[in-house]
Amino acid sequence: MIRFENDYAEGAHPRILERLMETNEVQTPGYGTDDYCESARNLIMEACGDPTADVHFLVGGTQTNTTIIASILRPHQGVVSAHSGHIATHETGAIEATGHKILPLPSSDGKIDAEQIRGVYEEHWNDATHEHVVQPALVYISNPTEFGTLYSKSELEALRSVCLECGFTLMIDGARLGYGLAAEGNDLSLADIAKLCDVFYIGGTKIGALFGEAVVITNPALKKDFRYMIKQRGGLLAKGRILGIQFETLFTDGLYLELSKHAIDAAMTIRNAFESNGFEFKYQSKTNQQFPILHNEQIELLSKKYSFHKWETVNESESVVRFCTSWSTKAEHVEALVEDIEKLALQKSK
Amino acid sequence: MIRFENDYAEGAHPRILERLMETNEVQTPGYGTDDYCESARNLIMEACGDPTADVHFLVGGTQTNTTIIASILRPHQGVVSAHSGHIATHETGAIEATGHKILPLPSSDGKIDAEQIRGVYEEHWNDATHEHVVQPALVYISNPTEFGTLYSKSELEALRSVCLECGFTLMIDGARLGYGLAAEGNDLSLADIAKLCDVFYIGGTKIGALFGEAVVITNPALKKDFRYMIKQRGGLLAKGRILGIQFETLFTDGLYLELSKHAIDAAMTIRNAFESNGFEFKYQSKTNQQFPILHNEQIELLSKKYSFHKWETVNESESVVRFCTSWSTKAEHVEALVEDIEKLALQKSK
Amino acid sequence: MIRFENDYAEGAHPRILERLMETNEVQTPGYGTDDYCESARNLIMEACGDPTADVHFLVGGTQTNTTIIASILRPHQGVVSAHSGHIATHETGAIEATGHKILPLPSSDGKIDAEQIRGVYEEHWNDATHEHVVQPALVYISNPTEFGTLYSKSELEALRSVCLECGFTLMIDGARLGYGLAAEGNDLSLADIAKLCDVFYIGGTKIGALFGEAVVITNPALKKDFRYMIKQRGGLLAKGRILGIQFETLFTDGLYLELSKHAIDAAMTIRNAFESNGFEFKYQSKTNQQFPILHNEQIELLSKKYSFHKWETVNESESVVRFCTSWSTKAEHVEALVEDIEKLALQKSK
Amino acid sequence: MIRFENDYAEGAHPRILERLMETNEVQTPGYGTDDYCESARNLIMEACGDPTADVHFLVGGTQTNTTIIASILRPHQGVVSAHSGHIATHETGAIEATGHKILPLPSSDGKIDAEQIRGVYEEHWNDATHEHVVQPALVYISNPTEFGTLYSKSELEALRSVCLECGFTLMIDGARLGYGLAAEGNDLSLADIAKLCDVFYIGGTKIGALFGEAVVITNPALKKDFRYMIKQRGGLLAKGRILGIQFETLFTDGLYLELSKHAIDAAMTIRNAFESNGFEFKYQSKTNQQFPILHNEQIELLSKKYSFHKWETVNESESVVRFCTSWSTKAEHVEALVEDIEKLALQKSK
Repeated sequence: MIRFENDYAEGAHPRILERLMETNEVQTPGYGTDDYCESARNLIMEACGDPTADVHFLVGGTQTNTTIIASILRPHQGVVSAHSGHIATHETGAIEATGHKILPLPSSDGKIDAEQIRGVYEEHWNDATHEHVVQPALVYISNPTEFGTLYSKSELEALRSVCLECGFTLMIDGARLGYGLAAEGNDLSLADIAKLCDVFYIGGTKIGALFGEAVVITNPALKKDFRYMIKQRGGLLAKGRILGIQFETLFTDGLYLELSKHAIDAAMTIRNAFESNGFEFKYQSKTNQQFPILHNEQIELLSKKYSFHKWETVNESESVVRFCTSWSTKAEHVEALVEDIEKLALQKSK
Repeated sequence: MIRFENDYAEGAHPRILERLMETNEVQTPGYGTDDYCESARNLIMEACGDPTADVHFLVGGTQTNTTIIASILRPHQGVVSAHSGHIATHETGAIEATGHKILPLPSSDGKIDAEQIRGVYEEHWNDATHEHVVQPALVYISNPTEFGTLYSKSELEALRSVCLECGFTLMIDGARLGYGLAAEGNDLSLADIAKLCDVFYIGGTKIGALFGEAVVITNPALKKDFRYMIKQRGGLLAKGRILGIQFETLFTDGLYLELSKHAIDAAMTIRNAFESNGFEFKYQSKTNQQFPILHNEQIELLSKKYSFHKWETVNESESVVRFCTSWSTKAEHVEALVEDIEKLALQKSK
Repeated sequence: MIRFENDYAEGAHPRILERLMETNEVQTPGYGTDDYCESARNLIMEACGDPTADVHFLVGGTQTNTTIIASILRPHQGVVSAHSGHIATHETGAIEATGHKILPLPSSDGKIDAEQIRGVYEEHWNDATHEHVVQPALVYISNPTEFGTLYSKSELEALRSVCLECGFTLMIDGARLGYGLAAEGNDLSLADIAKLCDVFYIGGTKIGALFGEAVVITNPALKKDFRYMIKQRGGLLAKGRILGIQFETLFTDGLYLELSKHAIDAAMTIRNAFESNGFEFKYQSKTNQQFPILHNEQIELLSKKYSFHKWETVNESESVVRFCTSWSTKAEHVEALVEDIEKLALQKSK
Repeated sequence: MIRFENDYAEGAHPRILERLMETNEVQTPGYGTDDYCESARNLIMEACGDPTADVHFLVGGTQTNTTIIASILRPHQGVVSAHSGHIATHETGAIEATGHKILPLPSSDGKIDAEQIRGVYEEHWNDATHEHVVQPALVYISNPTEFGTLYSKSELEALRSVCLECGFTLMIDGARLGYGLAAEGNDLSLADIAKLCDVFYIGGTKIGALFGEAVVITNPALKKDFRYMIKQRGGLLAKGRILGIQFETLFTDGLYLELSKHAIDAAMTIRNAFESNGFEFKYQSKTNQQFPILHNEQIELLSKKYSFHKWETVNESESVVRFCTSWSTKAEHVEALVEDIEKLALQKSK
């Protein structure tokens, strides 16, 4: 079985394992106060072009989202998100478990826009009984989104601007951030992202690390006591060095972007194969997740050899599926898939 | 600087890193549904002598404690703990953050006993206004305790018995469980522990793993939906295989106990050095944490070469310190320390 | 200003105030353990035809909803509600503040149906990754709904039946329950309601009391420790007798239904005035809330003399408004309004 | 049975019931936005000598404590309290249910002092691993305390001063505030209290009202969005007017202090009777709660005619009991008790 079902099917990039080997016997203090973490923090600050940013390392995405959001909101405040946002769908109510409502916005492509945010603001504050309603205070976006789509620089600037006007904090879930940075047509640099939001994170789990997410806090008002929050929410790894070593490796010699680019190339090859054989896509993704629409028999055929995600039903005979590439996707797997896509197309045409 | 300050100063046992290397390119499904986890679960069930137990892998101790406790208690219920219990002291209020009060009991050695538990029960239910008071429902003990002390089999049986009578659930925090199992004089096997409590966990972070805690649920009433709880509380590692591989390795060929024994031997050597040179101890620990009482000048002297924990003040001139050994403590470090202890004693006698 | 803006604009029915006067100097124990509460509980059990029900008195609706819901759900579980349900809209995230997600269902009239519930069940349990999603466990409906609409007996039976099949608990928010019971065409008795759900409450605040909601728990599995939950959530009134006296009065000589009927008669008079003058309604309500569609100038005109709620915008020139009657609506106020409606219609026809 | 068991055994002061009668048919908007509340707020601001204070009305004490505390603290912060503080003992973990740990301090008389607070501060910030420990941020005191004792002006000034130095917020639970203000030897005025803490509340439930607590927020930093918090925590009474009417009445013509004085006089008469007959007291209370030490047979004898609280066991033959007077304690009941105390003493002397 060849797995295109997600981007966390393998271990870690070999350079990371090597570094774990090399450093294994070095003794360090715990909880992220070691030199590897210090070095990784510096590399990330540099990559973000913000020498004043606070950088923290956590283990996983759900943990990171809850820690950031719980740290920012007062009890009566909520977080605005696309209805398809990861926090709104696939975190078993982790945000609500911290006491906060998610205020979902409709979205056809996983993105939300400045106008919607302004609408949320106006609806709340124009309501004479707004004290009976959860107060919007934080805007959550993911980039790339859960559908592989990307925010442009101008879109993010518009969101930033409306958040400033409304007094909202803006956070970016970057669980797949590298795959966005490396995508064709992307016009957002890491430095842009650091400047245009209050807090974001750089996903390691899905891009070459065994696990790990690097939180970057650029808004000084959000920096205070964040380590208490990490500890309380179970994210302060005793052997924090393991996170430091991983991110140090990823941010040395451009490895993070190199790995991201690898996944994008594989995804584009697969996308082109579907496209040139007449398949349509549910979402226009330039990143490592591709959502072609297939006939159910085609899905059945491919399922014999590949694992991938059945995403949603289109009609009785067709469904959207997701093919996911990653930093470690093998060329021969992509080639095999491309061949099989072509075969599907031939069968279709018969 | 030679570190005896904790038992998580190094990476992982080489056999674990090797296995991570070997398996690195194998593709697996995520979230603990892979074969390595399955195998590790089986090995642990076997080691516990309970083929019906549920075994789950989480990342760290605070996360594990909150997940277990939040899973068990209804909102008006609290968890009984020694006032020195880890959940009561060093988890930044993680339990309270799940909505539950910790009901602390006095303890001079980190342990609580059956009589105290019965007292909690009676005090609550004899109170005519008990509905105004948090209802005790769960008993938390750590074994070894935070002071390195151990429960005997008869003590644990007595706790089990009183919990059954009172309708309380009994959980054991085994973050350092191996160090208890391997200690001289210990009469509790893993199978005893599995039988005598409702849920416990086997610490990996402090005993040879990069990280990881294995939760063993033996009481069927507590098994339902535990994976939802892990996910909600941020503990469901995407690449769950990494936990599976680590625990599979630790529970193959007796590695877990072998590593534990290594730490105990080192600790006993250090203990004997202190003892035979006339030092007293705050706690009577047979495990990997040792708590000698030193003069402040002695502490200063040792601090130049060793890192260790200043635990608590005895009086103006003396303090309790903690020396911690681990699965990876080096013989030459122990020898150096023993020599320096002897030098201290000589200076004292002058 | 004549107020039709809500059903809590006045104090309490005079009989209640009289009883408070009469009993004022009697000394009672606190927290609902007095004889008035006992008597009220018995009257309500009798009215519900369930001598085994548990009856508890709380102060307000938000408090009652949170207490019931927090008492029932485990942390990873959520409550299904119409998107327009009071808990989903106007309680400042009180449910989320107890840690639970509300799973909203679309509804055009404030009601949800058995098929939707089955859909929720299937969607959850057919999802291979359902552990990443909040588990539905409780169904919340309000009757009358926030739009004044009512469940029929057969609709409620269908909901009950699907909840039993799915293992869901069914609760009814009866903040305006009397106005439903007294409505024309209603075929649900208090005994039916008690039999067809697991827990519900009988609103006092909006029907003759100064304040107060009577929770009726019929499912034995939900009865345990409910008083702890009331206390923890701030709802255990020290002078609980005040709640007992009020509900005793409301459930003596049919006062509760008599007051409800009074509001319904007033509402129907107003409805008929709108209807016979050609106004349309947004919701087909037979209860004390009426939602006619008015031109904005008509709204402006009526606003000079009456207070009522601007509910929602229809288009640039028209809006839905809400007129609310209550147990204490004065005949002369209704007559005045009817006259003014007729005047509006005349102006319109000019 | 004559009740001295608490100070909420009767209804309300007749003037309050009269006002409820008089105003019963007046229509008002809901949720505390009516003129009665406005008037009551003004009277309280005036009594506090702070025209900029925010005044809010809630229903009960537990609700008020949780709302204030949850409004102030960030998730990783805790509230310091005497171990005997009401929030730490008799609120079913309501504070923990908002996610916050209570940091208890030892106290022999229900009070805590500035030195203890400084100790909490230093212990936390001198701990190198303070991020693993709940951060103290708020100091809760009750005045009078749960044992009837009072803070002097200089003690409160010292607390205020240390809180300012440490960056802690200071709140006062004034559930029995009037009984403190009216006590002999008290040197704190309402204006002093308003000036010396950040937020406090004036208890109505125990001093003449049917129910109700008036929160006074003097620190501008704590004022923002407090009404959202009240609503979320279930304390925003629909018919808020009932709270306004009650506090307006209590703060007109000095009724609040007059009622408080009544209780104090009765308590002092009872105290003197015990004292002059040779009984000792557990706590030196000048307020409405008295804690004499009685022989168990004496307790049994008195229990036939009076209800009062068995507070705590002294030894096999003696216990502390609590006699509570209130705004409504009847002279004849006090006289009867005094006679019976004298009889007890005679029997003892035989």
